[in-house]
Amino acid sequence: MKICIKNATLISMVENRKQIEENMDILIDKDRIIKIEKDIEVDDKVKIIDASNKVVMPGLINAHAHVAMSIFRETLDGYNLQDWLNKKIWPMEAKLEKEDIYNASMLSFIEMIKTGCTTINDMYFMAEETVKAMEKAGVRLQATRSLMDIDGEEIGSERLEELKEFINGYKNYNERLTLNVGIHGLYTCSGPYVEKAINLARKEELPVHVHFCENFQELQDIENLYNLTPIKALKEYFSGMHTILAHGVKLTDEDILEIKNMNMSVAHCPVSNLKLGCGIAKINKMLESGVNVALGTDGQGSGCNLDLFESMKYAALLQKGILENPGLMPAYEMLKMATINGAKALGLEKDIGTIEEGKKADLIIINMENSVLLKPQNNLISELVYNVKGTDVDTTIVSGNILMESRRLMIDINEKDIIDKCDKIITNIYTS
Amino acid sequence: MKICIKNATLISMVENRKQIEENMDILIDKDRIIKIEKDIEVDDKVKIIDASNKVVMPGLINAHAHVAMSIFRETLDGYNLQDWLNKKIWPMEAKLEKEDIYNASMLSFIEMIKTGCTTINDMYFMAEETVKAMEKAGVRLQATRSLMDIDGEEIGSERLEELKEFINGYKNYNERLTLNVGIHGLYTCSGPYVEKAINLARKEELPVHVHFCENFQELQDIENLYNLTPIKALKEYFSGMHTILAHGVKLTDEDILEIKNMNMSVAHCPVSNLKLGCGIAKINKMLESGVNVALGTDGQGSGCNLDLFESMKYAALLQKGILENPGLMPAYEMLKMATINGAKALGLEKDIGTIEEGKKADLIIINMENSVLLKPQNNLISELVYNVKGTDVDTTIVSGNILMESRRLMIDINEKDIIDKCDKIITNIYTS
Repeated sequence: MKICIKNATLISMVENRKQIEENMDILIDKDRIIKIEKDIEVDDKVKIIDASNKVVMPGLINAHAHVAMSIFRETLDGYNLQDWLNKKIWPMEAKLEKEDIYNASMLSFIEMIKTGCTTINDMYFMAEETVKAMEKAGVRLQATRSLMDIDGEEIGSERLEELKEFINGYKNYNERLTLNVGIHGLYTCSGPYVEKAINLARKEELPVHVHFCENFQELQDIENLYNLTPIKALKEYFSGMHTILAHGVKLTDEDILEIKNMNMSVAHCPVSNLKLGCGIAKINKMLESGVNVALGTDGQGSGCNLDLFESMKYAALLQKGILENPGLMPAYEMLKMATINGAKALGLEKDIGTIEEGKKADLIIINMENSVLLKPQNNLISELVYNVKGTDVDTTIVSGNILMESRRLMIDINEKDIIDKCDKIITNIYTS
Repeated sequence: MKICIKNATLISMVENRKQIEENMDILIDKDRIIKIEKDIEVDDKVKIIDASNKVVMPGLINAHAHVAMSIFRETLDGYNLQDWLNKKIWPMEAKLEKEDIYNASMLSFIEMIKTGCTTINDMYFMAEETVKAMEKAGVRLQATRSLMDIDGEEIGSERLEELKEFINGYKNYNERLTLNVGIHGLYTCSGPYVEKAINLARKEELPVHVHFCENFQELQDIENLYNLTPIKALKEYFSGMHTILAHGVKLTDEDILEIKNMNMSVAHCPVSNLKLGCGIAKINKMLESGVNVALGTDGQGSGCNLDLFESMKYAALLQKGILENPGLMPAYEMLKMATINGAKALGLEKDIGTIEEGKKADLIIINMENSVLLKPQNNLISELVYNVKGTDVDTTIVSGNILMESRRLMIDINEKDIIDKCDKIITNIYTS
């Protein structure tokens, strides 16, 4: 199907275009953007979307999440990371069945679509179920089967076998699906196990995705396990790999230079990092050092929700606040973090992250007339970062498919039914 | 008119009641709550509001704002506090006329109503216009004429005269209006001038409202002006007064004990403090020390919006994050900050801040079924703090008047017209 978005206020995020272009038309053919011009003439077979007084920008990219953890929303209050995982989350996760992962993933995909996120980088297990939900929901996914062997060599090997099978079954499966090798963390994986995982990633030419330097305890655990500082352990095993580091809260200035030299990306998850009491990652320093910083929400258990507009605001304000410098983190840089930087982190910048002829048609339309919180409009770019909420997104398009239009889900999913099923999953866990 | 709210999930914020009570009815007669029970029987003259699956809680209280600054939303990017005031805001404010203050205030009151805030503590000028807008909007207001003499003794005296006139004209004017003496700051007011203001507050038995310890520059300015440390200057002039300190970002542990001993309240404005690069107030320490901490948004120029749900989340997460302790700032404490603590700060705790028989009927109804971001619901109190947005508020009632019902404004105001007028104010300022 062809779609023509008419009269948009376009924020393409393309480097050599103006930040804001008025009255632009965007023509989409099947899954790609084929033309961006003023006053494109089209025949009556083309679906027209009137974007007058609306902003069109690239769909947001969530560079670190645990999609099926939607059901653990607000289970955290009062726990620290290690206690929450050990005492609460892992025992609950052990009870999850395939269908639960499908439904919980679907709940997250609905949330994504309704808050303007089009691509998400997942790290979890039973990834086939998340992929099944992704196919139906129409979003873009980078998936893995998360690896960990701290709870035993045998179960670690099983997980690695599952990931190999998953990769075999799902490479080239769907243009909206890409894969990576998800290593839970250096504090939860032994050296030889990490080596096997890295070898797999190298052989399959996949990125690696790893929790790194999330909190103080983790630093100690890595030192105890590896007899190396965390950054040295990372260098030893991950050098030369396309790596997405989730969190990086405890990276020092020196570590940041090492990360830059290894060309790694950081998925900054400000809300989760605060909520778990981890701290605040030095992303201003990272950006100054040339590190590619993307944004993530983490799972809803610690990250509350998948609203990347909220994450942009937290990410900007935290640096201004702790460094006592309101000039830091210009709003346009925040939009980059949530779009093109995310695409680079996932190795997908040729296809997504900007609105450009030839790229995938992953974009969102935001109604700036929707809310008194957006009035008067003195600075559109700042409004997007500081006052637009995910729920102000009007229309979400992925690969040329309209997943939400005028805030109505256009996918073949009964939202209420998914919510009811997720309610039941969590009730069953608590009562079993 | 009588109103009966039926089948509510009640979060009354009353100390000796359960935090959450299911299936409660709340009967309102004129401006007061007269009964809170299950299954209240009423005749057919009573307006029934069905609150099944909805939360009823006290209207939120904004303890520090500049109501007419709505028109300066997103004018700040890149400025620090002093530069933004001197180079941008003050020259713009000099151009504002009476009608502008009325319309800009009305825009804020619409925003308040639509985000569940029922009372706001204002500090600005031409306060008569803000009061006029308040009367029409139906919200509760604590007002002042802001005092400052740094720009000249004569204009300082004029301002003080205006405040005296305002107090004479408006005490006992409307049950929704209370007054205070707003002293802009010790860095913008000379000692003798502050003394006059304090004497006025004492004579009129009014609270004082003052910006204090907002950023580092202010500390130096006060020391230069007073030859005293800021806390000593505060003690010298404000001891014995009912005082609302806006911000308190730079209060040290020792200062906090002094504040406690003087029984002063702090209006914590986390978003504004970050955005201006001021830093993060030690509100965990303040709470531990027994200081009454309320929440404020500041004006939209620095605070982005008036959404106190957002402020609750920032306030909680910042302390957990910087103190690296996820157990701090329990969600229920955040609800207290945004309700009863605000009422105490403004000296209004006998009338508002909790849902209690005999108190004013200032309450909000929140639709928990509205958003996939609230599902599944594992912990209602946490959901309210971490995932409810102001825009999830369904119904807002002040003094028994329904100002918004099912998200429709019920007041005699044309929202679109106010927005258009505010757009024009700012356009005129930029082009004049």
